[in-house]
Amino acid sequence: MNKKILLSENDIPKNWYNIVADMENKPLPPLNPQTKEVLNPSDLEPVFAKELIKQEISQERWIEIPDEVRELYKIWRPTPLVRATGLEKALGTPAHIYFKNEGVSPVGSHKLNSALPQAYYNKMQGIKRLTTETGAGQWGAALSFASSVFGLGLDVYMVKVSYGQKPYRRMMMQTWGANVVASPSNTTDSGRSILAKDPENSGSLGIAISEAVEAAVKGENTRYTLGSVLNHVILHQTIIGLESEKQMEIAGEYPDVVIGCFGGGSNFSGISFPFLRHKLTDGKDIRVIAAEPASCPKLSRGKFEYDFGDTVGLTPLLPMYTLGHDFQPADIHAGGLRYHGAGTIVSQLHRDGFIEVQDIPQLETFEAGQLFANTEGIIPAPESTHAIASAICEAKKAKEEGVQKTILFNLSGHGLIDMTAYDTYLSGKMTNYKLTDEDIAKTTDILEKLV
Amino acid sequence: MNKKILLSENDIPKNWYNIVADMENKPLPPLNPQTKEVLNPSDLEPVFAKELIKQEISQERWIEIPDEVRELYKIWRPTPLVRATGLEKALGTPAHIYFKNEGVSPVGSHKLNSALPQAYYNKMQGIKRLTTETGAGQWGAALSFASSVFGLGLDVYMVKVSYGQKPYRRMMMQTWGANVVASPSNTTDSGRSILAKDPENSGSLGIAISEAVEAAVKGENTRYTLGSVLNHVILHQTIIGLESEKQMEIAGEYPDVVIGCFGGGSNFSGISFPFLRHKLTDGKDIRVIAAEPASCPKLSRGKFEYDFGDTVGLTPLLPMYTLGHDFQPADIHAGGLRYHGAGTIVSQLHRDGFIEVQDIPQLETFEAGQLFANTEGIIPAPESTHAIASAICEAKKAKEEGVQKTILFNLSGHGLIDMTAYDTYLSGKMTNYKLTDEDIAKTTDILEKLV
Repeated sequence: MNKKILLSENDIPKNWYNIVADMENKPLPPLNPQTKEVLNPSDLEPVFAKELIKQEISQERWIEIPDEVRELYKIWRPTPLVRATGLEKALGTPAHIYFKNEGVSPVGSHKLNSALPQAYYNKMQGIKRLTTETGAGQWGAALSFASSVFGLGLDVYMVKVSYGQKPYRRMMMQTWGANVVASPSNTTDSGRSILAKDPENSGSLGIAISEAVEAAVKGENTRYTLGSVLNHVILHQTIIGLESEKQMEIAGEYPDVVIGCFGGGSNFSGISFPFLRHKLTDGKDIRVIAAEPASCPKLSRGKFEYDFGDTVGLTPLLPMYTLGHDFQPADIHAGGLRYHGAGTIVSQLHRDGFIEVQDIPQLETFEAGQLFANTEGIIPAPESTHAIASAICEAKKAKEEGVQKTILFNLSGHGLIDMTAYDTYLSGKMTNYKLTDEDIAKTTDILEKLV
Repeated sequence: MNKKILLSENDIPKNWYNIVADMENKPLPPLNPQTKEVLNPSDLEPVFAKELIKQEISQERWIEIPDEVRELYKIWRPTPLVRATGLEKALGTPAHIYFKNEGVSPVGSHKLNSALPQAYYNKMQGIKRLTTETGAGQWGAALSFASSVFGLGLDVYMVKVSYGQKPYRRMMMQTWGANVVASPSNTTDSGRSILAKDPENSGSLGIAISEAVEAAVKGENTRYTLGSVLNHVILHQTIIGLESEKQMEIAGEYPDVVIGCFGGGSNFSGISFPFLRHKLTDGKDIRVIAAEPASCPKLSRGKFEYDFGDTVGLTPLLPMYTLGHDFQPADIHAGGLRYHGAGTIVSQLHRDGFIEVQDIPQLETFEAGQLFANTEGIIPAPESTHAIASAICEAKKAKEEGVQKTILFNLSGHGLIDMTAYDTYLSGKMTNYKLTDEDIAKTTDILEKLV
């Protein structure tokens, strides 16, 4: 039996899949935060490349992947679909467990799937410099390589506390030529105003977004980029699921359940939307599970509302499941899942009952991660351990019920840069975070005032 | 054009290649250090698994890979052969540059190729526990996963200074369940005797070997393992070159030159011996280059002598190019290349004129590594940057001479765990190490007294 199902480079999809085309209830539009009117897409042009704005609002089902991007995808794509035989054996489950290994990307995660086209479209428009923010650094690392390939300058505003605590990701970005700035910095008005009040401020993703957006708007020939949440990012990530579909076909199986960990939604949507398509259009019987951290449960315990995408409140208002834009997630090691809201497409699909959610406590995710490392060899990223834990749950249920079941999950990245998290786990110092109803009740109520 | 040349799992070789079968001048035998007589292989049985001793002295050309090992190789093998189109373009060279990407292994390097069979043969013999030493930690990490898969206990003696400076690799080993001991330790007589004299001793590979061997010999059902230098390790690594041969055939090219970085010889031999075979047997016109650090130039500036494999002088005497077993290599970042001698097979082949050597200063290797990262996406291990620098040299020569040439090198591992080395380079704090003739002259002269 084959352990891995591989595709050839000719099998790299020629189009990304836009699920909006197949949704009966389209996502509600973003609103201008001042006027509360529907946002005019051209208002975004000082911030994002035009082609990306077009993709953001597109209702076309298939959007062509430019040849230049497909060529670069060949560096590591198609990624392997792997049968987790070692894990199955350890669990003694009749279930067949498959995972899509996005960790083989040179930056170590799925983020490069969107970083390359984002850099490409900016380059095509004549943009010279990009800005972005990064927390743990997965997105910043991916965009650093993408900018390097297309000869674009890049300023990454990295949350100051991560800049100190995650030196390896900072060094990766610098090796690929990016200018990495600890945020808040004195390079922007936003940063300076915060430092004036609080010189010791250790930063937040919200502040870093403010700095990156300001630098893009004020910079010459400069645009901002974002690594999750937005529709065009999710679009680019569907390449994961499109490849997986072909690979499952080669394996002669179809997944009963598709699982992705959930932060803003990019890797979850990437693996699941091409499968969900058949549920939307042909009524295919397939379950899709978003594996959230129990400490940041936007889909299961958040409200569906218009809310800001950032902490400070600078972005358009987005219709989404949210814990409130000022929700302060616990300091879990899965930094990429510490986000208050879900992307608008996922939110609408969840509202319409197409998505299941599983909330997983931190200790359970690392237990799953270590079991995976010892049976499959790969040490998974703390984010990805959420998907593994959920897959293990499903495999154990299959064992209890004595039914064969096919489980597919996305291994969004490896954890070699996150070893300190494993160290904390192994030394017994890791804790779970309990979230009270009071913590949750802080969400703002904007939607009800509007619709 | 395909960027990567992939093989299917059925193409994983069924045999390893033992070049000794094709050598006209066989390597000289190891000697018992006390009697200076030819060593009796059975003397090694308290230290190594019997099957590995058999392989160590085998003259058979092909040695079968056990099915269980081939199954585990499927986790990441066959590895891709990649056309370095980005690097070629940046160099403006007419040369075709290919690299074999061993960095896709879950432990990040080629070391797993030998760790799995070593763990397997020990398991088959009923051994319960393994010991080994590790410096930078590549070998220790590989053996940790291999031991975990076969349910063997493992004690890794990690040089104390690395234990502190390379925490990520220590954490990887622990995640895979290994017991990692900072050496010198108080768990062995060797360690205790050193600590008694010098409680602050920061350790060395030589001391760690002493501890690991002692622990194996004294432990119940315990054996020692080594990650390079020895013939059986080199045998296992030939899977790299055997796959590459098939892949070059698919590419429709044959390499004019094959390059590997050189520490003890395992990855260099792994990529080159299957090609060198055709030079030995059919007179094929092919060049093979060992890329050494200029600060540890055993092949180019060492002497061919009988010397100890370890610093302290506990191992059998091996016939090899050596800088002297007490040679103290400069503290370069390519920790895996800081070894005083070359394996006996490579040494004999070099003596017979089959191997070219290139010595590369540290700064040049990191310059090559960063160029590679920016053009091919992958941040290479500091060891592998030596092979890249040598390949770049050859590609530039091809450009000067205006000739097309096909270059193949082994990318032995990625550098994501070695980012602090890149940080030192990028911040301008890295230096080269000049080695004087006096440094070199320290080699002992044992061989001449014997032959």
